[in-house]
Amino acid sequence: MKKILITGISGFVGGYCVNYLNSLDTPLEIHGISRSKPAWDFIRISSGRDRWHHFHTADLNNFPRIRTIMEKIQPDQIIHLAAQSSVGESWKSPVDSFVNNTSIFLNIIDTVRCMDTGTRILSVGSSEQYGVVSKNDLPLTEDHPLRPANPYAVARVAQEHMAGVYHDGFGIDICCTRSFNHCGPGQTDRFVAGAITKQFARIELGLQEPVIEIGDGTIIRDFLDVRDVVSAYTLLLDKGKAGQAYNICSGRGYAISELVTMLSDRLTIEVQIKQNPTKMRPQENPAIFGSCEKIRSGLGWMPCHPLVDSLQEMVEYWKARMDFSHRQG
Amino acid sequence: MKKILITGISGFVGGYCVNYLNSLDTPLEIHGISRSKPAWDFIRISSGRDRWHHFHTADLNNFPRIRTIMEKIQPDQIIHLAAQSSVGESWKSPVDSFVNNTSIFLNIIDTVRCMDTGTRILSVGSSEQYGVVSKNDLPLTEDHPLRPANPYAVARVAQEHMAGVYHDGFGIDICCTRSFNHCGPGQTDRFVAGAITKQFARIELGLQEPVIEIGDGTIIRDFLDVRDVVSAYTLLLDKGKAGQAYNICSGRGYAISELVTMLSDRLTIEVQIKQNPTKMRPQENPAIFGSCEKIRSGLGWMPCHPLVDSLQEMVEYWKARMDFSHRQG
Repeated sequence: MKKILITGISGFVGGYCVNYLNSLDTPLEIHGISRSKPAWDFIRISSGRDRWHHFHTADLNNFPRIRTIMEKIQPDQIIHLAAQSSVGESWKSPVDSFVNNTSIFLNIIDTVRCMDTGTRILSVGSSEQYGVVSKNDLPLTEDHPLRPANPYAVARVAQEHMAGVYHDGFGIDICCTRSFNHCGPGQTDRFVAGAITKQFARIELGLQEPVIEIGDGTIIRDFLDVRDVVSAYTLLLDKGKAGQAYNICSGRGYAISELVTMLSDRLTIEVQIKQNPTKMRPQENPAIFGSCEKIRSGLGWMPCHPLVDSLQEMVEYWKARMDFSHRQG
Repeated sequence: MKKILITGISGFVGGYCVNYLNSLDTPLEIHGISRSKPAWDFIRISSGRDRWHHFHTADLNNFPRIRTIMEKIQPDQIIHLAAQSSVGESWKSPVDSFVNNTSIFLNIIDTVRCMDTGTRILSVGSSEQYGVVSKNDLPLTEDHPLRPANPYAVARVAQEHMAGVYHDGFGIDICCTRSFNHCGPGQTDRFVAGAITKQFARIELGLQEPVIEIGDGTIIRDFLDVRDVVSAYTLLLDKGKAGQAYNICSGRGYAISELVTMLSDRLTIEVQIKQNPTKMRPQENPAIFGSCEKIRSGLGWMPCHPLVDSLQEMVEYWKARMDFSHRQG
């Protein structure tokens, strides 16, 4: 039975990843590592036949512990999701960003090198690796140079470079992503789509005035539903070319204010937009969106969740959660 | 009095750096940090007026200790030489290479950020950052993309990227080098020029047959005398543009076998060259040499030690050392 290890399984993407793997026909043994147990019930989430789930509590910075766990599991594949993925946080604690991105990744791949098990690794990276780009460079293809412009991005570039060196120099079977913005039900309000949809939910429940507070509304980003993200990850895990990096994106850019307008139209709620300068960050990219041609034409991947549907589902998620809290409280 | 902190002061470049600073007229307080005391007598090396020397034993990975030392010193300038600079070692212990290059650097610059003292930093990097290059790209200018091809190079690229982010995002006053190969009396035989000159010394003393063992003799590198290196470093420390990187090189490439021929001619010793395949490394660059136009025309730097003179001095150094050991032994 194929053994897959997912690092950072307790995170937003981790849950969707497990769901996706569970929906496949392949017999699987899924192992998850995270500092804390998932909020969702990992073991019971799908107790169907040909599915085994194991959760390992561990800090990925604890090198000996990770080594012990990995030697016990001997995974065929690793999906490395664990990350400290907030750009804002990385400006506050650059060192932590480095430790919790590059160092933990290096620990994983070096353990694989030492074990010599031929384990296949998917290294999840970020569109932040491209850095500040000009409009003429859009949509970004994978050939575009990496010029990281914040501590998080530097850590991610180092991660991808290390992946390349471990592939070319040690023959480690590793494929990389440069993932653009995600969204989907369950995303926290620390990310922009989460923050906007939460406010819509509050407005619908009569908990706030019809005013949506955002940072810079003109900023353009490329949003992909988390379910399309994980379908891309599992495809790359099986078929992505080793030693290469793939953009994971929708191929379209949306201004942050457009997200608000789109939802406002769909939900037929009139709202005002209020821009809050304290939510703006140094070194912000005015516009960034990618080309997904490499994974589309190369591997036949197709995203199938329209953005407005995802946003609406996110509003429903928030409403259900608030309603639940209300009933609990 | 200006206070300069030199990390990795006990290393090969550290000693020359102190010598060079001592030769200047400026009153200086020089602080050195290293894990172990320099072999040379740092305190007594020049006890002239207007010179104060302080040595601090510390591991740069000991973050709280470095913070305490730096807060006490409050340096005006930092020359960050400390590094684990062997490509070969980095293939053996990639994680150590990362910790002893990128992490220690991040510790230094993050301490400067937290202290908010406006300290000027010189970040020493490497030509290895360019990665595998084609002949058409030579000589390499600073605009050439960075495509690191070994763990050491990845760590150095991350260091330079972090320097850029700390400059652009936090306003840290930092200038970077991409230093090509160094040579000079005192260099160990772990580096190619040291290894070749040591063998010449042994031949001159009758300790070995006239056969020089090298790795791949066709490999082309750019060698600069360490005294020209440190003159470039101190110039950059004072006048290099913040947020930028400068090549430190001679601008000329020499095949490794050429070094042997050159010395053989100068010393009028006939030698045979023996290539040892075990000294060859994965991912080796066939040829690499840089353009030093940026620091030459921009800042008026001029190297003044011809390579053959440096190599001859290195042979003299080895001979003196062997003779000394012989007398001791």
